[in-house]
Amino acid sequence: MAYEKDEAFIVRQAEPFNAGPPLDRLVAHQQTPNNLFFARNHGNVPKVDPAAYRLKVTGKVNTELTLDLQALQSNFKPVTLEATLQCAGNRRAEMAAYKPIPAELPWGAEAISNARWTGIRLSDLLLLAGVSAAAGDLHVEFSGLDDVERHGHQFNFGGSIPVEKAFNQEVILAYQMNDMPLPPVHGFPLRMVVPGYIGARSVKWLREIRVRSGPSENYFQAKAYRLFPPQVNADNVVWEQGLMLGQMQLNSVICLPEPQARVLAGSVELRGYAIAGGARQIARVDVSADGGRSWQQAELLGSARPWAWRLWRAVCTLAPGRHELVVRAVDTATNMQPASMQQIWNFKGYAANGWHRQTLTVE
Amino acid sequence: MAYEKDEAFIVRQAEPFNAGPPLDRLVAHQQTPNNLFFARNHGNVPKVDPAAYRLKVTGKVNTELTLDLQALQSNFKPVTLEATLQCAGNRRAEMAAYKPIPAELPWGAEAISNARWTGIRLSDLLLLAGVSAAAGDLHVEFSGLDDVERHGHQFNFGGSIPVEKAFNQEVILAYQMNDMPLPPVHGFPLRMVVPGYIGARSVKWLREIRVRSGPSENYFQAKAYRLFPPQVNADNVVWEQGLMLGQMQLNSVICLPEPQARVLAGSVELRGYAIAGGARQIARVDVSADGGRSWQQAELLGSARPWAWRLWRAVCTLAPGRHELVVRAVDTATNMQPASMQQIWNFKGYAANGWHRQTLTVE
Repeated sequence: MAYEKDEAFIVRQAEPFNAGPPLDRLVAHQQTPNNLFFARNHGNVPKVDPAAYRLKVTGKVNTELTLDLQALQSNFKPVTLEATLQCAGNRRAEMAAYKPIPAELPWGAEAISNARWTGIRLSDLLLLAGVSAAAGDLHVEFSGLDDVERHGHQFNFGGSIPVEKAFNQEVILAYQMNDMPLPPVHGFPLRMVVPGYIGARSVKWLREIRVRSGPSENYFQAKAYRLFPPQVNADNVVWEQGLMLGQMQLNSVICLPEPQARVLAGSVELRGYAIAGGARQIARVDVSADGGRSWQQAELLGSARPWAWRLWRAVCTLAPGRHELVVRAVDTATNMQPASMQQIWNFKGYAANGWHRQTLTVE
Repeated sequence: MAYEKDEAFIVRQAEPFNAGPPLDRLVAHQQTPNNLFFARNHGNVPKVDPAAYRLKVTGKVNTELTLDLQALQSNFKPVTLEATLQCAGNRRAEMAAYKPIPAELPWGAEAISNARWTGIRLSDLLLLAGVSAAAGDLHVEFSGLDDVERHGHQFNFGGSIPVEKAFNQEVILAYQMNDMPLPPVHGFPLRMVVPGYIGARSVKWLREIRVRSGPSENYFQAKAYRLFPPQVNADNVVWEQGLMLGQMQLNSVICLPEPQARVLAGSVELRGYAIAGGARQIARVDVSADGGRSWQQAELLGSARPWAWRLWRAVCTLAPGRHELVVRAVDTATNMQPASMQQIWNFKGYAANGWHRQTLTVE
């Protein structure tokens, strides 16, 4: 498999490489091994010479910075945190099953993974460059070293976050993933990790950090990764009117049993993941074995960690027959996932977080 | 009408006084006039002598404080902000229509209002008492001067918020409401205003602020104002297992036309309110005139203000017949209201934020 990924990887697109693990493998680890971590690319995977690598900090700063890897790793305090990345398009295939979304990647529920990231705080870098957290409507833009082409234009992938988020302790520039050097497909030698936000803001192969007024004008901030109402489509869209995505969507998924599984009657264990957006936490996961008519509470595994997903399990007692399994999560701000993909369909297929449903045959 | 409220007030309970305005009056003002602002009381409305009034700041502080009104109003910088208060039980009657919730107030959609509040920052008071925002798992508890009785126990209403929220700029001790002294029923002479949180944390007739480890043990924090899954009821409840409510629920409501209204065919204007919880904003309001099969985007009125509701309007072109109007809101973190009250029913009737539906007859 390309990029040292597991042989079982599900490749949604070979070039650019967009792929993720089977759900049974994904749910087996609180921290996803590097060879199982999903990969979302918009262009090539650049080969970066670490000796020649330089990061620039530019724009509305007091002092522009140019830093090599040695300086980045020696001059700032290293930090390690666990954080889940989720593509804004995770579970798009289920939304597209309701109504087609032809131009976008048909992700299953595998466009999400969780890892331990080691790096330096973005806030330390911004303070060194003389940026103030209290400064007006500033945004911090990240650009990568990859080559992307959209609508005949060549550019680097990029996006931005508001300066208030940029100064939060959890936003880091990572050079290690699960205590290993960052693999090339995940952004070697340096990437952003913006916990709680859609994966697209965690820009890989970080080339430049630019402090600016207003959000990035990069295609992937200005046009893509916006949420539109159901009556908007590719023909009538006014890009500026969409909701610019920031915090990731609340989500939960049944990973085991596998889809279309057949199991013996009696106790059946369900396992899966749940993730909250922003700084919110998973408060509760409900599972149903009768299509949502009755519910039981799943057990949340491990302990709550601020930016990480929550794996869960539930044991249902099932008689022979076909059962519609359902899962839904509630976050600490009492948000719940919407019941169906129909209710949230949008022509770009983002934030596809309807209750996850799966048919199980019990024998 | 009691407590200088408008004659049109809908009284859900005379004693304690729990009442709110008709929706057509509520939606007529960005800032709800004091005589239309909903009232939620758990006990009596205490008569407080402003000359004898003292506020105490106690618990895990370096210096305990006792302050009179003069000191509170002179020694701290006054601030004014607009903020919406919403009862966690707003719209409970619609949830109870699906399955009864006998022991709780049957609120319509009127347990919400928005005002300009003037007072002092809680953070200024905490800093004076020597509390650090960075301190461990601290909570800031508020107690009132009212007398409440629950299950044979007499106590004061109270609740708490995490210390991180307590240090936010928007959390204030208010002595003015819409530039007038706080009316007695709204907490004279001093009340908490905790924007973005359920109304219950904005404790009235503030008697004491106590810094403590862990959340308040007051009945209204420890038992009431918790969210339970649908399979939990009064007989099997384990209070500690519920989600302790904090941030208020995302919500939107059609205020005009009035319920069961009859209008002439053609252009029909809909008006209502929408509110996001926490520090999130309303990103979009969708309305439907066919029960949710098709949608159009409502116009958000005025400008976005951090802690205030967003009034909205939409003009639908309607033929003669019966129409099911629906409204739903999306917040800036891509949360959407759940489609039906059935999906979120809980035996205490909190966070009742299913899509708001209303039947309209067009002639």
